[in-house]
Amino acid sequence: MNVLIVYAHPEPRSLNGALRDFAVQRLRRAGHDVIVSDLYAMGWQPSITDADFLDRDASQPLKIEAASEHAFASSTQSSDIAEEQRKLLWADALILQFPMWWFAMPAIMKGWVDRVYAYGFAYGVGEHSDRRWGDRYGEGTFKGKRAMLMVTAGGWESHYSARGVNGRMEDLLFPIHHGILYYPGFDVLPPFVIYRTSRLDQARYRATLEALGERLDTLFETAPIPYRMQNGGDYEIPSMVLEPGLSAGREGLDIHLADK
Amino acid sequence: MNVLIVYAHPEPRSLNGALRDFAVQRLRRAGHDVIVSDLYAMGWQPSITDADFLDRDASQPLKIEAASEHAFASSTQSSDIAEEQRKLLWADALILQFPMWWFAMPAIMKGWVDRVYAYGFAYGVGEHSDRRWGDRYGEGTFKGKRAMLMVTAGGWESHYSARGVNGRMEDLLFPIHHGILYYPGFDVLPPFVIYRTSRLDQARYRATLEALGERLDTLFETAPIPYRMQNGGDYEIPSMVLEPGLSAGREGLDIHLADK
Repeated sequence: MNVLIVYAHPEPRSLNGALRDFAVQRLRRAGHDVIVSDLYAMGWQPSITDADFLDRDASQPLKIEAASEHAFASSTQSSDIAEEQRKLLWADALILQFPMWWFAMPAIMKGWVDRVYAYGFAYGVGEHSDRRWGDRYGEGTFKGKRAMLMVTAGGWESHYSARGVNGRMEDLLFPIHHGILYYPGFDVLPPFVIYRTSRLDQARYRATLEALGERLDTLFETAPIPYRMQNGGDYEIPSMVLEPGLSAGREGLDIHLADK
Repeated sequence: MNVLIVYAHPEPRSLNGALRDFAVQRLRRAGHDVIVSDLYAMGWQPSITDADFLDRDASQPLKIEAASEHAFASSTQSSDIAEEQRKLLWADALILQFPMWWFAMPAIMKGWVDRVYAYGFAYGVGEHSDRRWGDRYGEGTFKGKRAMLMVTAGGWESHYSARGVNGRMEDLLFPIHHGILYYPGFDVLPPFVIYRTSRLDQARYRATLEALGERLDTLFETAPIPYRMQNGGDYEIPSMVLEPGLSAGREGLDIHLADK
């Protein structure tokens, strides 16, 4: 199978660099084809600007959605954007690997999402009717592909636990898992998270590689997070509010899991 | 009072541009001093790189936390970072204004956080003991200052409601509110969010300005979101797990509110 790793760390001689090299090797040995988008090494430009839209009329105000739609449809996107889109279409699985900075992905990776996720490609896909609200949340361009996060965090695991002070890791990752990956159609696997990375001794490092290897070996079998499909009848259209009988009387992010 | 607006939109002739101009004018008329960090206009560089740390030894691997600590303590940070830190220290209130892209802030603003929030400034502050775990979550460099988000979202408000398909807006913003603003000590005000911005007619635009004006007029009186202080006895040290008797038996992000 084809695996795209999008990787965001400025220092190759880092834990993240070592984990990336391990992942590439492990996946290739299993027979997969692997491409790495090493955003720092590529000099990835993170900010959406005029220059992303090659034939736009600069005398007019930039309306990003319209500019993105036109540029994607007419193949007048900046070439770095189009290249990443080709990699996404090629991939059977996407791995986003990054250190968690301020409870989110580094700016350079957010800028990969902001720029590569064009209108007509990752959003603005599909029809709107009284039975469907576009192809999103379980449908869309990436339907049938899988995605997984590989995340390092400096803090203690208990600080990110169900009642930990940082907020539960699953909830902190929801905007990425559900909003960035499930929205355009990926099946989202449980994340691979390494905590307290500044105190990673050799024994825990070896255990980490073993656990990561296991996750990579089962990349195409692991059950995805069971988010509810948008157009499967669970949400009212067009309000997109969960039907009252499902996760009845509850709020919060867990209600979007089909098994809760 | 002093108000810093950090603003991230590439097009001045946009709804965000108009709201920013309105906010600056409204605050100045009320007697406040206002500085705007217009990240696109400033050509803000979003990615943490070697160049942020002026006297580092490039033959050694970049360890970001250590490099940040040293550069902040020895005043050898890149000048653009130091300048934003001075603005933060000057400000009594911080407003982060941005369009929500993919359920988070644009890359250029995340890069403002990643780079300006140095070790010893926004994290790595205070002592660790059996009674305290650093100055964070209600304490820290920005204690006594207030912060508020001004966010535009293309989607419908109901899609972001308590049971809406996107996830509840408060939960999507938790990594910013709690993780980026409350962590280094800001009192965090309820956000000002404008939904469905592509269908904003004149009547709703006028109502939006009126509501925004009211929020700006009461910027220094509005009650903050009642997040629990880390070192106030609510969390066990060092596990930083919420005491069992508080929000008993519950999980999820709301348990970090003192009134729930």
